[in-house]
Amino acid sequence: MEQIKSGYFSEKNDLWPGQFFSLEVEKVLHNEKSDYQDILVVQTKHHGKALILDGIIQCTERDEFAYQEMISFLPLCAHKKPTKVLIVGGGDGGVAREVSKHPKVEEIVQVEIDQKVIDVSKKYIPSMAVGFASPKLTLNVCDGFEYMRNHKEEFDVIITDSSDPIGPAVNLFTESYFALLKEALRPNGIICSQASSFWLDLEHVKETMRNCKQHFDTVKFAIANVPSYPTGQIGFIVGALGESVSLTTPLYKFTDNDIERLKLRYYNSEIHRAAFVLPNFARNVLRN
Amino acid sequence: MEQIKSGYFSEKNDLWPGQFFSLEVEKVLHNEKSDYQDILVVQTKHHGKALILDGIIQCTERDEFAYQEMISFLPLCAHKKPTKVLIVGGGDGGVAREVSKHPKVEEIVQVEIDQKVIDVSKKYIPSMAVGFASPKLTLNVCDGFEYMRNHKEEFDVIITDSSDPIGPAVNLFTESYFALLKEALRPNGIICSQASSFWLDLEHVKETMRNCKQHFDTVKFAIANVPSYPTGQIGFIVGALGESVSLTTPLYKFTDNDIERLKLRYYNSEIHRAAFVLPNFARNVLRN
Repeated sequence: MEQIKSGYFSEKNDLWPGQFFSLEVEKVLHNEKSDYQDILVVQTKHHGKALILDGIIQCTERDEFAYQEMISFLPLCAHKKPTKVLIVGGGDGGVAREVSKHPKVEEIVQVEIDQKVIDVSKKYIPSMAVGFASPKLTLNVCDGFEYMRNHKEEFDVIITDSSDPIGPAVNLFTESYFALLKEALRPNGIICSQASSFWLDLEHVKETMRNCKQHFDTVKFAIANVPSYPTGQIGFIVGALGESVSLTTPLYKFTDNDIERLKLRYYNSEIHRAAFVLPNFARNVLRN
Repeated sequence: MEQIKSGYFSEKNDLWPGQFFSLEVEKVLHNEKSDYQDILVVQTKHHGKALILDGIIQCTERDEFAYQEMISFLPLCAHKKPTKVLIVGGGDGGVAREVSKHPKVEEIVQVEIDQKVIDVSKKYIPSMAVGFASPKLTLNVCDGFEYMRNHKEEFDVIITDSSDPIGPAVNLFTESYFALLKEALRPNGIICSQASSFWLDLEHVKETMRNCKQHFDTVKFAIANVPSYPTGQIGFIVGALGESVSLTTPLYKFTDNDIERLKLRYYNSEIHRAAFVLPNFARNVLRN
C-alpha cells in the first residue's frame, strides 16, 4: 500500500532498477496478506481492475488477454494432440479461460498454491476468473512441485503461469523445475513458462533457457507485447520433448471464424510465428 | 523540470492518461527552451543519457537503436533502389546514423526545424549525433513542409522521425502532409512515419492510416518494441506508390556478416516481416 501515492500505484522494484511504471488508482478494492504474498486489487482509472502481488502488477483488464492467449496457445497450437493440460499457477483464472477454448483440450488440471488469489479473483475480476467455471477444469490448491512429484507422464502440455522470480515463484526458473516438468509430460509433450523480458535481464533469461535445455530437446524463446508489464513485453520459454518438433509453426490453426467466436483478441497463426523472431542482440545470446 | 521529483523523471502526459513511466535521474545535463520546444537532457542511472522534448522521452541510449533501425530499414529494405533519402525531423542524428549504413543509399538530405536539438545532441549524445558526420548527408535547418513544397519528385524514400502529435509535430499526421510526401517522391517511392502505439489510441492510428491511404497505393502498419516509450511499443506507417509493392518482404537482405559489421542490434530480415504481424484487435481495425 505504501506504493500508492498521490492517486497512483507505482511499481518500484529491484528487478527493474532505474525505472518504474505507474497506474492511476480510482479505488483500492482489496488488500490482504495471505500465507504466501501481499494481495492487492485496485480499480484503475484507465486500465480496468488490476491484480498486484507483492507489489508487482500481475494483470490489468485492459491488456491481460495478450499474455493469457499467448502463454496458452503457443504450446497448445504447436502440439499435435493436446488432450490433457496442466496449469501451474494462474490463480486469476485467465489461463484456464484461454486453455479451455482450445477444441482439442479435453481435460485441464490446475495447481495454484494460494487459495486467496483464487478467491479475490472470483470476487473482483470475474472477466478472468470465469476460467474456473470451465467444465474441463479440475482445480487443486497445492504446491506445483509437490503435485508433479506424484503425477508422472500424465500431461501433453504444461503451462507455468508464475509471478516473477522473487517470492513464491523463485523455484519455477531452476533446472530442477524443468526436470520435474519433463517427468510429468507424456511423450512429445510441450511446456511453456513465463520467462521475464530480455530487455531487463538478458543474462537471467539465458540462464533459464540453459536450465530448460538440460531437459528438453527443442527450446525456443517467444515474446508477447503487454504494455502494463515492465519493458512492455514479456517472454516465454517453450520447450518440447522430441528433436524434430517445430515450435514456431502452429499445427492447429484457428480460422477467422474461430477467432471471432472464441474472442481471441491477440493470438493468430501469424503472430505465433512472429513471436519467435527476436532482435539481433537477443537472438545472438539466446541462439533462438 | 517540474517532472523531476525525488530523483526520478516522470513522463506524465494527456496522450497516455492513467499511466506514466519514470526514469531515475543521476544528473540534469541540459535544460533550455528553444523557439520550438523545451529541451531536456539527463544522465539516467540505468538507461544512459535521455533526450526529452516538451516533457516526452524521445530516446534513451539503452534502447534507441530499436527505433532508429526499424524506422530506417523498413522502408529502405523494401525499396529496390533507395538512392536518395529525405529525413524529416530526427534532430538527434540517430536516423541519419542508420540510413547512412545502407549500401544502396548515396545521398541523404535531412530537414530538422530546431537547431538547438541538433546542437544539444552533438554535445551530449555523440553516440547518436555521429549520424551528422556521414559524408552522404546534407543537413538543412528548416521546416519540413516548406522544404518539400520546393522539392518535387526528388526522393526514393522519405522518413518522418517526428515527436508525438502535439507541439511542433502535430501537422505531420495530417492528410495534407501525406499529399506533400507523395509529391516529393520519385516513382515507386516509399515513406515511413512514426505513428504512435495502437495500444494507446487505436482510433488515432486508424485516422492517420486513413490519411496516408488517401495518397498512397499500398499502406501497412509495423511495430518495434522500445521499452522506454509508452506501452513499450511504437508503430510506423509505411506507404508505397505502386500497388504491387510488398512492403512486408525485404528486397534487400543484410547478411549476418553485415549485421555484425554495421552494428545492427535490432533489425534483420525476419524481424522486418514479423513487424507487420499485428494482434487481432489491431489487425481488425487497421486492416493490415
